[in-house]
Amino acid sequence: MIISLKKHTPEIEKQKLITDLENQDFQITIIEGVHMTLLALTGDTIKVDDKRILANPWVIEVRRMDVPYKLVSRYVHPEDTIIEVGDVKIGAGQPLVIIGGPCSVEGDEMMCRLAQDVKDAGGKMMRGGAYKPRTSPYAFQGMQTEGIQCMVHAKELTGMPIVSELMSIDKIDEFVKNVDVIQVGARNMQNFELLKALGKVNKPILLKRGMANTIEEWLMSAEYIMANGNPNVILCERGIRTFETLTRNTLDVSVIPIIKERTHLPIIIDPSHATGDWKLVEAMSLAAVAAGCDGLMIEVHDQPECAWSDGSQSLKPEKFKTLVEKVKKVAEVLGRSI
Amino acid sequence: MIISLKKHTPEIEKQKLITDLENQDFQITIIEGVHMTLLALTGDTIKVDDKRILANPWVIEVRRMDVPYKLVSRYVHPEDTIIEVGDVKIGAGQPLVIIGGPCSVEGDEMMCRLAQDVKDAGGKMMRGGAYKPRTSPYAFQGMQTEGIQCMVHAKELTGMPIVSELMSIDKIDEFVKNVDVIQVGARNMQNFELLKALGKVNKPILLKRGMANTIEEWLMSAEYIMANGNPNVILCERGIRTFETLTRNTLDVSVIPIIKERTHLPIIIDPSHATGDWKLVEAMSLAAVAAGCDGLMIEVHDQPECAWSDGSQSLKPEKFKTLVEKVKKVAEVLGRSI
Amino acid sequence: MIISLKKHTPEIEKQKLITDLENQDFQITIIEGVHMTLLALTGDTIKVDDKRILANPWVIEVRRMDVPYKLVSRYVHPEDTIIEVGDVKIGAGQPLVIIGGPCSVEGDEMMCRLAQDVKDAGGKMMRGGAYKPRTSPYAFQGMQTEGIQCMVHAKELTGMPIVSELMSIDKIDEFVKNVDVIQVGARNMQNFELLKALGKVNKPILLKRGMANTIEEWLMSAEYIMANGNPNVILCERGIRTFETLTRNTLDVSVIPIIKERTHLPIIIDPSHATGDWKLVEAMSLAAVAAGCDGLMIEVHDQPECAWSDGSQSLKPEKFKTLVEKVKKVAEVLGRSI
Amino acid sequence: MIISLKKHTPEIEKQKLITDLENQDFQITIIEGVHMTLLALTGDTIKVDDKRILANPWVIEVRRMDVPYKLVSRYVHPEDTIIEVGDVKIGAGQPLVIIGGPCSVEGDEMMCRLAQDVKDAGGKMMRGGAYKPRTSPYAFQGMQTEGIQCMVHAKELTGMPIVSELMSIDKIDEFVKNVDVIQVGARNMQNFELLKALGKVNKPILLKRGMANTIEEWLMSAEYIMANGNPNVILCERGIRTFETLTRNTLDVSVIPIIKERTHLPIIIDPSHATGDWKLVEAMSLAAVAAGCDGLMIEVHDQPECAWSDGSQSLKPEKFKTLVEKVKKVAEVLGRSI
Repeated sequence: MIISLKKHTPEIEKQKLITDLENQDFQITIIEGVHMTLLALTGDTIKVDDKRILANPWVIEVRRMDVPYKLVSRYVHPEDTIIEVGDVKIGAGQPLVIIGGPCSVEGDEMMCRLAQDVKDAGGKMMRGGAYKPRTSPYAFQGMQTEGIQCMVHAKELTGMPIVSELMSIDKIDEFVKNVDVIQVGARNMQNFELLKALGKVNKPILLKRGMANTIEEWLMSAEYIMANGNPNVILCERGIRTFETLTRNTLDVSVIPIIKERTHLPIIIDPSHATGDWKLVEAMSLAAVAAGCDGLMIEVHDQPECAWSDGSQSLKPEKFKTLVEKVKKVAEVLGRSI
Repeated sequence: MIISLKKHTPEIEKQKLITDLENQDFQITIIEGVHMTLLALTGDTIKVDDKRILANPWVIEVRRMDVPYKLVSRYVHPEDTIIEVGDVKIGAGQPLVIIGGPCSVEGDEMMCRLAQDVKDAGGKMMRGGAYKPRTSPYAFQGMQTEGIQCMVHAKELTGMPIVSELMSIDKIDEFVKNVDVIQVGARNMQNFELLKALGKVNKPILLKRGMANTIEEWLMSAEYIMANGNPNVILCERGIRTFETLTRNTLDVSVIPIIKERTHLPIIIDPSHATGDWKLVEAMSLAAVAAGCDGLMIEVHDQPECAWSDGSQSLKPEKFKTLVEKVKKVAEVLGRSI
Repeated sequence: MIISLKKHTPEIEKQKLITDLENQDFQITIIEGVHMTLLALTGDTIKVDDKRILANPWVIEVRRMDVPYKLVSRYVHPEDTIIEVGDVKIGAGQPLVIIGGPCSVEGDEMMCRLAQDVKDAGGKMMRGGAYKPRTSPYAFQGMQTEGIQCMVHAKELTGMPIVSELMSIDKIDEFVKNVDVIQVGARNMQNFELLKALGKVNKPILLKRGMANTIEEWLMSAEYIMANGNPNVILCERGIRTFETLTRNTLDVSVIPIIKERTHLPIIIDPSHATGDWKLVEAMSLAAVAAGCDGLMIEVHDQPECAWSDGSQSLKPEKFKTLVEKVKKVAEVLGRSI
Repeated sequence: MIISLKKHTPEIEKQKLITDLENQDFQITIIEGVHMTLLALTGDTIKVDDKRILANPWVIEVRRMDVPYKLVSRYVHPEDTIIEVGDVKIGAGQPLVIIGGPCSVEGDEMMCRLAQDVKDAGGKMMRGGAYKPRTSPYAFQGMQTEGIQCMVHAKELTGMPIVSELMSIDKIDEFVKNVDVIQVGARNMQNFELLKALGKVNKPILLKRGMANTIEEWLMSAEYIMANGNPNVILCERGIRTFETLTRNTLDVSVIPIIKERTHLPIIIDPSHATGDWKLVEAMSLAAVAAGCDGLMIEVHDQPECAWSDGSQSLKPEKFKTLVEKVKKVAEVLGRSI
């Protein structure tokens, strides 16, 4: 950590700050620059509150040189983490995992039918929303417990594990009992109470990146889950908010190699929410696989124009099948199976 | 609502869509354009799921011409809403309300001392964080119930109402019992389960804008609270995320006249979180008041360099006092008291 | 084009506006909505100045339903455009074109050596900056005319066509004489005087997207060149500015299918400027190819740590060679050669 | 400048880098951190090419601690710069300068009439666009030389100095001869050839911030003009591009105190382009003045619904007059006249 001080900081103020920091067990190196004095701090700076130092009127800037997370980092855990969900393994070196299913669960028959379609096409897990975060209070809010039960039936039929989004702490027991991977949605990425509670659960967590959150903030949210005791975190990129309006969000494909370099966690991509447009889903899926992701989560619906939510971004089962075939080809040529 | 169809949409497909919409009680006007056919929908379009229509492969685009909210809108409620918090009134035409206090509550004596400072300077309410949303799991997470009790003591001493942030549904009772205005933080602006629960509470809610949320999304979150039964919503702008890095966020001052035009709700500004830098707080406070806000929420701490959080953006009591004096002058010259 | 008027607009004001628009040869359809009146305009709305209509105090909003460009659009020109640069063809259905070379030209020997490396690895054209747009006036500004001559020599040696960036109108003759594809950089994407001048030139133009420009604005800039007489435009995405700071820019891979749907122009991707980090270039190149781009432009340098500019994003020749091999495999499996 | 190296960088590589930097006359301090080694560089680091250092595969990151500009900085020039334009003085401590006029010059009579209106209302300079940067090639491109002449006539009539936008180097002579302040538009903020040319001119330059440029990039563009010999730069903020769509851009009011702290240059605000909506101009003008700007540039038109460009953001003369009166009150109460 580097602290820059105004050039004319009184010696007594400089000493006060240095003593204060040394009392916290940091080593200080003083560097005299042309327009400022730099203090280089070494030690376990992860717990330093940079805002407190910034409050000192002689301080110009505080820059963290080391990463603010530990457990998610490759420094601490150099080997790739593989998450096991029943028979399915997610992570580096494993076959790509394709997750398919509708945005919202709309009933028992529908969920079983689509789960079978997803499985037939080569999918390994099914997704479905039972509790839905909707911008409008007047929009469909999900089938809730009944929706979860529809997914359980589809699992009995197909054997495929279930991914579904949890929106509040009070439903954790229902999810732990019924669901195989608990999804934290983009809007809850910094719902820290929820993250802490999921740190105490013995289930894999699929943590979506918030639509306006930096990679570092995203990793800090993963750190919340891990620091509270649950090491099974799968990261999921689903597009970030930018000035462009032709796509719902901008899929940040470059997170894939960055996550691989900095962390040991698996990363999957959700091209459906990222683009909001089924016509773009195939191209973005292929791009994500070529860039090295560990899986895809794709919305599938057989009657998108009647879907209870997000119809515009859902692929029909036959298009999903074609996509899986192309994904397979690209993965294989880069040395990976699906 | 306007739906644009590809020029060569088969007549049978066009009719199917029109019949479907007419069955939902919308009136349709067909307009033949050069490169596309437009369908203009009138009726109560607020519940239309535009994504479902977009799933139709003949549809190019769907544009909502009317606003997607009702209860927050001036169309439905033309008079300004005034929120009463004890003796304090917040809203158009009322004196400006200045809220001051530390980022985190750090103890009983500290909270009482700062509350008195805020009151002496001309503040009307006090703020303080007892439950803290922190990016890092290793950062101080708040004094919690003990912190709330410190604020209650400060209220007994000064008579000033309390504003504090609620982070999860399970603490609602504690807040309803002890706090005068319940704050929803930026990171929870789209925590829809929390919003629904707060719609059932009989307390004013201070709803912060998410750092990457549009004004429309913000108003939809206010609509959630109101549609669930609680009409007492105060909006609070605290800066949005942009590419600029010299400020923590970019304070969007232009929301003030926009909110005044579109809604009947009070709007207050938090220049402390917006800028992240105490040196900018006074200038941004004066700007917000000149633009017509109904109040300010400002972080005050007597030892910012020892603050348990956000020291860099806290004003010392004497600087806060000077700020209130300047705010008073600007307000008065524009026809408003404080 | 749809104009929404306040519900209580006086009849006389409504008529005045309608008459004014009818006098400009537009057909008007009036639609009475619940909270507003809509006017649907049909005709050649491309030249309508929506800002003028918005100045009318009874108008709430003006929305353009048709695209504001013509010549770049698939509506007007359904077949894919193929740009010929010597023997190289760029566009849909053609082999992928890989362009390589240093950020800045640094001398004759260096340019010839790197051009040969690029060619040996499978590159088809060479890039090199002779005039450099640098954020700092104290940074190296390019070898200028001497740099262009180095590229000419490298072309004599290797036979590969030259791409180089033009920064001002007064050098157009030099570029027309010596260069095969004239690049317009991101910072000049809306330098309209330059675009108009390039519309009068008989050379292919490689038009980079501005780092904060929408796809629509980018296409309007292409329209400038085409409307002034030059149909040979190649679009190039090089990353957009977002809040993320771990990459220099965010490569917007989703532009590839969007450009293919809306226009007939070729699109190439520059992963070097997009990421600013050589470690990310391979993954992003593969992603772009998988998403369907028509070519790549990649910075290559044999001593990046001594490069006169942008060393951090340059690949060494052997890494470039590996990249081309992988790109080839991905392209072929998706039905395209290089 | 701080360079962070991987912890296990071979000693020989570390020494090579250090020797290389010492040969460039920098002093190096080595700091051993937990996960990395830091090299602190002191000396005249302004010319260091951080990208070259980043190309070194052992380097993790390079952070500049000092500012990358000199001439615009308060370090080098502590006193406020006052720019003189005829009798008008712009800068800290001077009366606020209000500039008014139409977006586009539309003729002689119109320009004279509006200039008189602006003067009568209390404006001190007039603005008008003769060369217009338009997104669409089909939009009105300005009256050009004829437009400049209209402004010259309006100046003869009213005595008010002229501000107008220059779009290309070849018109510099026309502007130097006829115009009092040469404006560089947002889209040309990084047209470095134009900036260099304007550095050789003896006229004040009004440099608008690019819509997606950081404050630091903006100051680097000012540095270009000053480093080439022209010290007369006025900065002008006109809104930045964000995800919000209800305003054309987001006016970044916080630049005002930041510019005042870091530089000695005057800063004026253009609320018309920032908001794109005449209804927001007054509130944003008052906000900017309260935050401490040195002037305002406001679009004025007596028939906005017939304006040749940007009608939606133009104030009618009587509204402009009211605005000036309110601005005066706010300025005076904060100790400044207009």
